Amino acid sequence: MFSGAQISLYPMTDDFVGVIMSALGALDPYRDHLRIETDDISTLLVGPPEVLFPAMRDLFAAAANTGTHTVLSAAISRGCPGEPDDAICVSAQLSGPREPLEQRKAASLAAVAAAPDLSTPIAAQFSLYVMGTGNHMDEIYGCIDFLKQSGVFDRSKNFCTKLGGDAGAVFATLEAAFCQFGPPEGHVTIDLTVSANSPTPRT
Amino acid sequence: MFSGAQISLYPMTDDFVGVIMSALGALDPYRDHLRIETDDISTLLVGPPEVLFPAMRDLFAAAANTGTHTVLSAAISRGCPGEPDDAICVSAQLSGPREPLEQRKAASLAAVAAAPDLSTPIAAQFSLYVMGTGNHMDEIYGCIDFLKQSGVFDRSKNFCTKLGGDAGAVFATLEAAFCQFGPPEGHVTIDLTVSANSPTPRT
Repeated sequence: MFSGAQISLYPMTDDFVGVIMSALGALDPYRDHLRIETDDISTLLVGPPEVLFPAMRDLFAAAANTGTHTVLSAAISRGCPGEPDDAICVSAQLSGPREPLEQRKAASLAAVAAAPDLSTPIAAQFSLYVMGTGNHMDEIYGCIDFLKQSGVFDRSKNFCTKLGGDAGAVFATLEAAFCQFGPPEGHVTIDLTVSANSPTPRT
Repeated sequence: MFSGAQISLYPMTDDFVGVIMSALGALDPYRDHLRIETDDISTLLVGPPEVLFPAMRDLFAAAANTGTHTVLSAAISRGCPGEPDDAICVSAQLSGPREPLEQRKAASLAAVAAAPDLSTPIAAQFSLYVMGTGNHMDEIYGCIDFLKQSGVFDRSKNFCTKLGGDAGAVFATLEAAFCQFGPPEGHVTIDLTVSANSPTPRT
């Protein structure tokens, strides 16, 4: 199954190029397991979710830890029918038979509990889209149940869910939402915004 | 049908607050027709597509015309089953019976041809998601056909389509993609990134 993301990093500073260039080093441990292509609007990362989410996490944390108000925006996708398969995308998380929804919620909570602590507080919001299945809202409501127990749930908003907490737990929660809900071979996407160091008070 | 967007404006400058505050005046002509709520991560706009897209266009153009490298990111949605209906969202574009795909493509091209010229060159990329219908890829391929004839098509990328041109034509194209494809009462979303004044050469 083809999986990956189009990501962009937005440091709100005159030196945005410097912040981006210095943060890119955080991708080095992942480069052998990702295909990476950059243009003027985003960077494509192609690879399995278990590489993709930690790579986005470490890239964002590196930028956030400069203290600059920085946002990461990502369009994350798996199983898009229009995309060719790619050997680099083979994922242990997306193979084998699908367990019942309750088991997948429990596995998701265990993954979040095991997440590393990056000591990087972030806010995030995302929309999970499950395409081409009649019961897509069942999977989404199951995912929302998990999110509410994740420890990083902030609140439901129109069109999306807002999270807040350490980058480790937040990205583990996002990875579980992406992998554990919707059919394993289905077309599932996330529209993600992650923010750190915003001067606007949290509401 | 409930429709709207969660939007964020990212000016890549130390004075990002100043750029955002000055651009917000561009929303004034639309305020009576939108419900607007802001927090630390995004601004919710609730209203029909024929108000929503011009409002996003004028907000982004105001920020882009400062010359700052600026990005608008938006999660745009209509017909989400989890959202209550709202009288402010009533849309002439999303009522009545659905025409055949070819007629909708022609109507989309006519709308782009009639778009105002804002003399604001921008780049955009977006993903169109059509949920809960077995033939969602037919509608997406129909939309891609329209995009290729729109005059602002740049190229297909993994997970998304890239556009480039004047803000008037680009936002008219996005509005047509959002309204004319997918079932009129269906759940359709767009994950949108719009960029201006990037120092990175276009590829």
